[in-house]
Order: sequence, then C-alpha cells, then structure tokens
Amino acid sequence: MVAPPPDWVAKLTPSGPQGSELLATERAKSNINIDKLSSFMFGKEALENEAKILAILQSEKVFDKSQNAFMGRVEKFPVALARAKKLRQLQVKHNWSIDDYRVADGLISEPGPYGLHASMFLTALRDQGTPEQHKLFLEPAENYKYIGCYAQTELGHGSNVRGLETTATWDPADQTFVIHSPHLTASKWWIGSLGRTANHAVVMAQLVLNGKSFGPHPFVVQVRDLKTHQPLDGIYVGDIGPKFGYNTMDNGFILFNKVKIPHVNMLAKYSSVDVKTNKYVRPAAASLVYGTMTWVRSTIVLQSGQTLARGVTIATRYCAVRRQFQDRDDVSNDVTENQVLNYSMVQFRLLPLLASTFALHFTGKAMMEMYTQNQERMKKAVANTRRGAGPEELQSGSDMLADLHATSCGLKALGSTIAAEGLEVCRRACGGHGYSQFSGIGSWYADYLPTTTWEGDNYMLTQQVARYLLKSARAVLKGKAPANDTTEIFRTFLDAQDKGCAFDILSNDGDIVAAFAWRTSYLTFEALKHRDVEKQSWNSLLVDFWRLSTAHSQYLVVKNFYDALQSSSLTYELDSVSITTMHQLFRLFALSTLEKEASEFYSSSALTVRQIQLVRTKSVMQLLADIRPHALRLVDAWQFHDWQLDSSLGRKDGKVYEDMFYRASQLNPLNGLTVDPYPESDVLIKKDETNRGLQAKL
Amino acid sequence: MVAPPPDWVAKLTPSGPQGSELLATERAKSNINIDKLSSFMFGKEALENEAKILAILQSEKVFDKSQNAFMGRVEKFPVALARAKKLRQLQVKHNWSIDDYRVADGLISEPGPYGLHASMFLTALRDQGTPEQHKLFLEPAENYKYIGCYAQTELGHGSNVRGLETTATWDPADQTFVIHSPHLTASKWWIGSLGRTANHAVVMAQLVLNGKSFGPHPFVVQVRDLKTHQPLDGIYVGDIGPKFGYNTMDNGFILFNKVKIPHVNMLAKYSSVDVKTNKYVRPAAASLVYGTMTWVRSTIVLQSGQTLARGVTIATRYCAVRRQFQDRDDVSNDVTENQVLNYSMVQFRLLPLLASTFALHFTGKAMMEMYTQNQERMKKAVANTRRGAGPEELQSGSDMLADLHATSCGLKALGSTIAAEGLEVCRRACGGHGYSQFSGIGSWYADYLPTTTWEGDNYMLTQQVARYLLKSARAVLKGKAPANDTTEIFRTFLDAQDKGCAFDILSNDGDIVAAFAWRTSYLTFEALKHRDVEKQSWNSLLVDFWRLSTAHSQYLVVKNFYDALQSSSLTYELDSVSITTMHQLFRLFALSTLEKEASEFYSSSALTVRQIQLVRTKSVMQLLADIRPHALRLVDAWQFHDWQLDSSLGRKDGKVYEDMFYRASQLNPLNGLTVDPYPESDVLIKKDETNRGLQAKL
Repeated sequence: MVAPPPDWVAKLTPSGPQGSELLATERAKSNINIDKLSSFMFGKEALENEAKILAILQSEKVFDKSQNAFMGRVEKFPVALARAKKLRQLQVKHNWSIDDYRVADGLISEPGPYGLHASMFLTALRDQGTPEQHKLFLEPAENYKYIGCYAQTELGHGSNVRGLETTATWDPADQTFVIHSPHLTASKWWIGSLGRTANHAVVMAQLVLNGKSFGPHPFVVQVRDLKTHQPLDGIYVGDIGPKFGYNTMDNGFILFNKVKIPHVNMLAKYSSVDVKTNKYVRPAAASLVYGTMTWVRSTIVLQSGQTLARGVTIATRYCAVRRQFQDRDDVSNDVTENQVLNYSMVQFRLLPLLASTFALHFTGKAMMEMYTQNQERMKKAVANTRRGAGPEELQSGSDMLADLHATSCGLKALGSTIAAEGLEVCRRACGGHGYSQFSGIGSWYADYLPTTTWEGDNYMLTQQVARYLLKSARAVLKGKAPANDTTEIFRTFLDAQDKGCAFDILSNDGDIVAAFAWRTSYLTFEALKHRDVEKQSWNSLLVDFWRLSTAHSQYLVVKNFYDALQSSSLTYELDSVSITTMHQLFRLFALSTLEKEASEFYSSSALTVRQIQLVRTKSVMQLLADIRPHALRLVDAWQFHDWQLDSSLGRKDGKVYEDMFYRASQLNPLNGLTVDPYPESDVLIKKDETNRGLQAKL
Repeated sequence: MVAPPPDWVAKLTPSGPQGSELLATERAKSNINIDKLSSFMFGKEALENEAKILAILQSEKVFDKSQNAFMGRVEKFPVALARAKKLRQLQVKHNWSIDDYRVADGLISEPGPYGLHASMFLTALRDQGTPEQHKLFLEPAENYKYIGCYAQTELGHGSNVRGLETTATWDPADQTFVIHSPHLTASKWWIGSLGRTANHAVVMAQLVLNGKSFGPHPFVVQVRDLKTHQPLDGIYVGDIGPKFGYNTMDNGFILFNKVKIPHVNMLAKYSSVDVKTNKYVRPAAASLVYGTMTWVRSTIVLQSGQTLARGVTIATRYCAVRRQFQDRDDVSNDVTENQVLNYSMVQFRLLPLLASTFALHFTGKAMMEMYTQNQERMKKAVANTRRGAGPEELQSGSDMLADLHATSCGLKALGSTIAAEGLEVCRRACGGHGYSQFSGIGSWYADYLPTTTWEGDNYMLTQQVARYLLKSARAVLKGKAPANDTTEIFRTFLDAQDKGCAFDILSNDGDIVAAFAWRTSYLTFEALKHRDVEKQSWNSLLVDFWRLSTAHSQYLVVKNFYDALQSSSLTYELDSVSITTMHQLFRLFALSTLEKEASEFYSSSALTVRQIQLVRTKSVMQLLADIRPHALRLVDAWQFHDWQLDSSLGRKDGKVYEDMFYRASQLNPLNGLTVDPYPESDVLIKKDETNRGLQAKL
C-alpha cells in the first residue's frame, strides 16, 4: 500500500462549508417526517427487521466490502462463494424465511454463486415436480446437498424458447431420456450458478418421442460428481467468461453427449411420458405453467423503484455537497460556490427520476397485488374446474390471466428501462467522480443492466402488450369485451372520439391520467387499423407496437401512482407536507413524461401545442423548484444504509471527500506498486519493500 | 484451465446456416464498392499505412489481447505499462510521426500509462513554454527522461477552473514559487498518468503575488525521484483507485506541502512574474491560450463517428448472423429462423446509428478544417498585430474564434453523447451476448464514457453555445453582426418569421437543413426574449439553453453532412450505389433526429403535425428498408480490423459462436478453479492439479 499519509496530510480537511453541514442544512429545509413516510412505503416492521439482519451481516468479516472494488474476477469469485456459504449458514442459524434471506441478499448487493439455486432451481423443482420428485430432488436441494441451476438459454437461442436445440429423446428400451446437444449452438449458455458451482441442473430440452418433437420440457440432470465436483461423463461444462457486470456469478455453459437420465428425472407435474404406452401426457392447465415467469416479472417491476432509488439517493446527496461556480446573476460579491443541486439543469435531470422512484414503487406494489389476486382466483378456478365449473368462470379466469401477463410484460419493460437508464443519468449527474468505482453507482448499474434483457427482452415484450391491446380493442369493437380497466378506457375513447377531448392537465390530476389513457387508446386503434384494415405485416408494425406498449405502460404507472395517492391510509399515516409533496411528485413524473413524449399527445389530439408549451416552460420548472427543498428528506425516506450503498458520494453524513481520499490512498492496492517508468527499461515493477508481496501475484 | 474439449465437442458446429455463409450472402446483396467508399472517407494512403502499423503491432507478443478481459486491475496495469513502453520503443525504431503513434494507439485500443504524457504534458510544455523552458523541460520530456502529466482538476473542483485551490505563492526572498495544497479538496484528482507513472507534472495553481491572486497558471513540478521513483519531500501522491472503465490508466492524486520550485518552472510564454519588479506580466493574447482546448474538443468530434462505428459494426454483423423466430406472417411452413437484422425494430435501433457514424465523420472533418483555418488566420493576425493591424482585422479574428469555440463546444457535447449512448444501444441490440465482455462493446463503452464529462461536461458546454447564440442574435438585431452562417440563418428567420415557412422536407434535402436552421433560430430568439425582455435568471434558463445548444448542434451536423454530399469529389470518387446510399443515410440521420425532437419542430411552426406523422410512419420506415441491404458493406467500409475490435460478435467472417465458445472454454482462467460447493464446508477452492497454480494467487 501507499505509505500512510504524513501528519500534514492527515490534518487537512475539505474547504468549507463541510459536507456534513451542508446536508444538515438541507435536511433542515423540509418538514417531511421521514419515519412516517418510510413506514407508509415499507411498513415499520419490515424496516426494523432489515436493521436486525444488517447488524448480523456487518458482524461477519466475510461481508466486509472494502476490497470489493479492487478485486479481479478470479479473486472475486471465491470471495463471493464464501459469502454465499455464510449467508446460507446464517439462514439456517437464524431460521430466516425466504423473505429474510432476500433482505440479506439485498443488503449485500452482490450476485452470488447460489443465486440461481436459491431462486429458479428450487422454484422449478417445487412448481413443476410431482410429490415423488419433491422427495427425490427438492429435499436434497433445499438442504444444499444438490446445488442446482436452471438451464434454458442456449448459445444460439435466447428469446425463442421453442427454437431450443438440446434434445431429450425417450428410449423405451431402457426407459431413459437421452439428453443431447446436436450442435455447438445447442450449448446451454448464460446459466447462472452453473459455471463452477452447481452439481445439478434443470435442463430445458426438446422432448422427442418416437421421432416426434413435443417442444421444450424440464429435466433434472446431475452434471458434476457430488464428491469430486468433476463433470460427469458426457458432460462438458464451464464458466462463460467475464461480463460487463455480474462477475461474482458463474454464468455457465454445458454440452451433453448422449447423457442418459431415468424416467423420473423429467419434471412431471404438468406433462409427462407414460412408461407403459410410451405416449405423451398433455399438460393439465397450460396457463399455470407460465405463472413463474409472471411472478418473476412482477418482482422486477417492484424492485425497479428501489434499484433506481439507490442511484438517486447517491446523486442527490452528492449534488447537495458538491459546490461549483457562483450564481451568474449574483451581484453581491459572495464568493461562496453554489450547491450543484441548485442548478435547474441538475434538478431537471435528477428530480423527475426521484419522482420515478415513487411512481415505480407504488406501481410495483399494485402489480404484486394483482399477481396475488390472480393466484387466488386461479386456485379457485382449478378447484372449481374439478367440481365442473361453467365456461364463463373459466373465461373470466383466462381474461384476468391475459391482462396480468400483458401488464407484467409492459411494466417489466418500462420499469427496468427507466431504472437502468436512470442510474446512468444519476452517475453522470455526479460529474467526474461519478466515474469512480467509489461512487457506488457504476457497478450497481452494470450488475442491473441484464434485467433489461432477461425474463423477456424489453423490446420483445412490447409485442406481447400490443397483441393484448389489439385483442382487447377487437373485443370492444365487437361488443364482447370483458369488463376491465383496459376495455373501459377504450370504450371511453370511442364514445368521445367524435366530439374530441379537453383535458385540463394543468390543474386536474385526474385529467392527467385521462390524457394518458386517451393516448394509449388512440395508438391502439391506429395500430389496429394498420393491422386489420390495411393488412400491414406484423414485422412492419414492430416500432408502432413498441411505441404503443410504452405509452400504455406509462399510463399504467401514472394511474397506479395516482390511485396510491387517493388511498385513505395516505391521509391517515402521513403529515401534510409529505402528502403535498407526494402529489407534486406525481405531477412531476406525469408531466415530465408527457413533455418527453409530447408529439404523441399532439397527434392523438389529447392536448394542444399551447398546453405542452406551458407544461414544458412553466409547470415542470415550478415543480422542480417546489420539490427541491424536500429532495434530501425524500431520498432519506428510502432508508438505504451506508453499508448497503457502499458509496463515497452517497454517504448519509456528507463526508464525501474524506471517504474518497481514504479509499484511494489507504485501501487501493495499486499504490503498492512502484514502477520503473522509463521506456528503455524492461523492469515494470521495482523490487520495493512497500510493495508488500504484490509482485508475487504478478 | 478447463480440460481441453473432448473430441465430441471439438466436432460440433453451429446449426446451419453458418455465420460465414450468412455474412457472405449479406455482402452479395449490395453493390457498394467498399474500397472506394473507404478511400473517400479516410484516404487510401492512410489505410495502407494503418495496415503496415497493424502488422508491426501484431508481431509483438506484449500486444496480445487474448487475456485482456480476464485480468484484474493490479494485473492489468503492469501489462499496460509494458505495452506503453513497447509502443514508445516502436515509435523510435520506426521513426513514427505523432500521427502514426496515434494510429497504433487506436489499434491497441487501450488507454495507456503514457497517455497524458504523450498528449497534454508535451502539448502544455510546447504551447505554453518559452524557448528556454523548451530546452529545460520539453527536450527531456520528448525523450522520456521526464515523464509527465497535466494536473488541473482537483478533488473539489472540476468544471470551475477558477475555483482551484492549489496555490503557487511567489517568494521574492529566494525567487521561488511555493506550491501548496491548503485543503483536502485542493488535492489534484483524476490526473492521468500521475498515479504510478509520472515523475513530473504541469500543475495548474492560483498564482499569488504580494497576497493577491492572479488566477490559475501552469507550473512544472517534479513529483518523484528520477532514480528511485519515490515521491519527493512534501509530496503525497498515488493512484485514485478503480473506475467504471479506463483501468489501464493510473489516474492519480497529489497534495503539496509548501514545495518550492524555481522561477523558471512557471510556464511563461503568455504570462509571467518579473523577478526584478516582483510584478505580474499580463498575457499577450488571451485567446491563444485557449487554443489547446478547442483542438482537443475538435478531435473528440472527429473521433465520435469512429467510436460509434465500432459498436455499429459489431452489432450489425452479429444481427446478420443471429437468427431468432420465424416471420409471424410467413405461412409457408419455412422453419428457418429470421436474421435479427430483418426485424424492423432492430433496424429502427441500429440503422439511424449507422447513419450517425457518417454524419459525425463528415462533421468532424469539417470541424478540423475550421480549426486549421482559424489557426492560420490567428497566426496571421498575431503577425499583423505586431505590424500594427487595424481594429477591424482583430475583431474579425476574434469573431471567428468565438464561432469556433461555440461550434467545438456544441459539437463535442452532441457528438460524444450520440457516440456514448449509441454504443449502449448497439450493446443491447446484441441481446444477451452483448453483455459478455467478448462482445467487445462493453469495455469500449466504459472506456469512452468519461468523454461525456471531460474537456467540458456535456451539459456545462451547452451554456457556452447558448451564450454565443444569444450574443449573435443581439448583434443581428442591432444590425452589427459579422457575416457567418449563424447570423445568416438568424437573418433569414427574422425576414421570413411573419409570413411563416413551408419546408418541403419529404422531397427536398436542402429544405431539411433549412427546417433545422429555422428551429435553432426560433429557439434562440425565444431564449433571448426570456433573458433580455423578461429578465429571467440565467439559472432558470439552463434547460432552455441545453435544448437550444442541442438543436443548434444537430443543425450543424445535418448541415455538414449535407454539404459533404454536395462536394464534387463525391461524384468523382464514388460509385452510383454508394452515392444514392449516402443520400439515404443523410435523410435517415436528419429525419430520425427530427422525428425524435418533433415537438420543437411543431412549436416553432417549422413543420406541421401531418409532416411529422409522415416522417415517422412512412419516410423513416422506407429509408430503413432501403438501407438494410447495404448495411454490411457500409460497416465494412469503416475498415476495422478484427484484431482492433477484439470482438466475438463483430468478427468479419461471422464465426461468432465458435469464437465465443473458444474464449469461454479455452482462455477463461476461472475454469481453472474447482470449488467445494457445499455451504457447510470452509474449503472454497479444491486442491486440484488442473488448477495450474491459480490457487497460489488467491
């Protein structure tokens, strides 16, 4: 390491005013009751529980984060494995629920090698296995005797699951399935936890019976020896290499050379092969099979607000500490520099994102609520089917499922896009220091980025939403549509279309929601005309569909935020300043979205040019000024712990520069290398006792 | 390493059609003469020279890139230093010019520890030193006896150079300057090449004379011993730690404790301290001092096209190899999957960026031309001043400088934003594999990102542009404006404002340029009204200024692209298909920009809602279809070598999957670790002969 700072350095402080003073002043500007707001958002118990879990994690040395930023991947991975093990040990020791485990995982904030075991592997076994299979696979998996992964994506196939190349061919002779990779592109790829960790995999493979393919099905395959951890015969498996982020996870590849597995290894809750007849047994309720994906997408929506809030918290705090330039119009000769957060350009970049964090939070909660309701309804429907339910009841369940599917697709795409792109805006709003790993935004952003691609690529998903909206619109036109919010806004639009609309978006919040609904409806019927009347090809309409899905999802977020603010618990639980500010955040989110998408609001005649100009030049700028004094307390209400953020710039106490300097000068191993700088010299690193053994590693 | 693939793996190929066949078919679709187009863009000689330099680099083992993606920072840095040394040795050996050196640097595509020595340190000494100082500092620096850096930014000050805290206090007693860091925030920060490499620095410090500050000035300070390379007394120096990218560079910090340097160490070409009178000698021509920044910004504009073109090349090639889903409307039962590049949504994301690469290329060339012209003019003006030139001539030089300054600020901001954000669009267009480091986009993007912040933060710079436009508009209103393009478009706007405009953007390319000019002019006079008539504060107008600057810079790019296509050399040098395609690329760039910014074109009355709708639904979609068959040849014309791109996905021969698999399975050191996966076990890495010594490093 670099020599510890001499006395004259240790004595230095940042030039005044100090960061801690600036943040204290900021917090004094607002009366928002942070505790009440936090409780309203997360519940008091959950926050207390999180604090308890945090204390346990912080007391374990293995979770120390101070060297995270300095490690290469080969060093990082074993550390991540050690953390995963400790986390599992703590789960057993403290009898943590799966929710507690997730809270701990969130505080650690690092993808770990057990990640896919604890999520998709266990879920697949649980949801798609029979009771016999639960005993055989799920039990040892829950006890971490089997450590597994979920192997679906291939080198040549991601989005198109039906195009998977891996085969599972039924051999009636010995009643086994033969798992095989016919091509290089059949190699499973991107499989989390498979690269070095897993000894089992749920493999999605084309089921082949008597030479006929029945599409992708799940098979449990042991991939490594339980003792030596070496790959089994006929298996070639490894890690796929470094990624833009997520490097503490061992995403893997695997190829199979005619690997035989017993009949019981095909997960058979929904479909199976009859050993007596050698025939395929069709799934009972296809719709239930897709429940897992909907759940995963819903959690992405829920997490998107919190994901973005980390970046917004860091950037807002740093922009309150950082000062740069005097105010140009200030003639008072005051030489104190202006806090960066006072510049309207910075507010324009950050505060709409602050508003987005709340918008996405309430939307995510509504999405989870919708998912839960649907699950209950589906369970009832299945029970009723067994009792012989009528076609109407089944139709209603299926309608709700279609709505849930489309909503989760659209909101997953929009929420994760807002979060990912918003994090980069936050990083840049921190100026040069945003580029340092000590900002805590870069690595978080890099780890989050795949969310825009996995569980349905954000662009691909928009086709699902458009298909649903077109179908709903056709049903409305035929007068056969189910009663739900989507069909209601379509009917409203069709009724009012001739006489036009007049939304008072500048003073009526409900009208803002209505303007978004109008735009969705207009775009839907335009797209329907292109497809059904003009008979345009599906491919030629993909851009229109993407626009439509985005518009609809924005409407859903605006509506959910609006609805959340109408709830009676709001008035009951929050102080009046918080309530006012929440309404301002709603308007800022809605109006700044509207302003960015202005041309669709014009062309659908939802709004006039004059209205948009007023939104742009007056309303949004006024809202920025109104919200500005509350910015610090609003990010405080997200209740991130310093340990969790691991950010110099986002420190709650404002000691930004002290922390940057400490990490650079005292923790940074590169400062242990004394180089020979001259081009003629072949010596790179000088032998030097200060290097503390780093040379040995090179 | 992982065991080499067994025979059954080695025999596997991707499922057909093969990538190489697909790319061959793609190239056969178009008649564009790639060689002619490349020569037109870069010149034949330059391309041949680049090929020669490439061969030299490839023959040197130290430049082997195959392990780049796997190294941690502490391993990476000495390798980067070894490469920097070799590059310098080759420069001497082959007598490379500075341009040759830059070509080599571009092919290596990795920021190196000599980076700031070779650029800013030498430039500062050359441009701001006296002949005596050239002998004393520049000569040893050019011979790499002194290795230096340019130390301006501080922990607490980036954008606001006048706010720097480091002081250089003149001590008349012993005729020295005392360099001092009064606070922690005075620590120099982000200084490239300073962290471990430099032994000298040009330090920007507040010159203090008799207790009075004269603003920041450059001082040469030795920071490390020439032999031991240890920091000198009173200096605390080190590397600032890992960054989001750029980790092969040792950005550093430095603090000074009353370090004395001789009088001659203040770079004195423009201003100095008179040792006899102890008085400050004012700079001769302040404007010349800022020439370096303008040059740096101009080169950023020039490079932005090429920077983006790397990502576009990789994504376009991969999207031609990758196939996913059948066409939805295809009823022919053809099971061949569709190339991803055939989807309109993919075209809509990629092809406007392809158009941007050419737009930025021609704009960059025009920008450099403008810079060169200005330099010549300034030299003449200085010479004439010595001969006693009239005020008119001086005014004209100063006008041109203001124009050059504003243009370089606006285009730097726009060009680097398009390039940085475009690269991320390219990465995502590669689907999941875009996230792999083997895509070659992620690390390139991460290394490029600081360009949006350095040499003037992209948002800060927009104020410079707005200030210039407001000033020009005021001059036009007063009838005292110089004759240049900006004032001309303002006059045209003012003349036509009452009667309105009617631009035929759908069939006339010149009218497209005029519509962009109209929008700039409208926004300028709107902003002028807010500032001068309504007396709004500067701070409240920052968002308007940013919009104005963006609009103006977009106009400049559209205009420069248009002008380049009017040149006679185009008809002379290119085949007719290329010429037609270039015009289509111009329209695609201009119209897709226009469509994204639609609301400003409405509100300025430059265009009607109907026109924009036609652009959106017809023109842009038609241009995508027209350009699609030429996409592969157009990216080929950028002439990137595979070695330079270092990308599995962007391989010229289309062997995408083979390369991904080879890198993951054969080069990836993580596959040398056999772990113990069970949570109860404290063993992380098993002792295993296949681990080949990796354990020793952990």
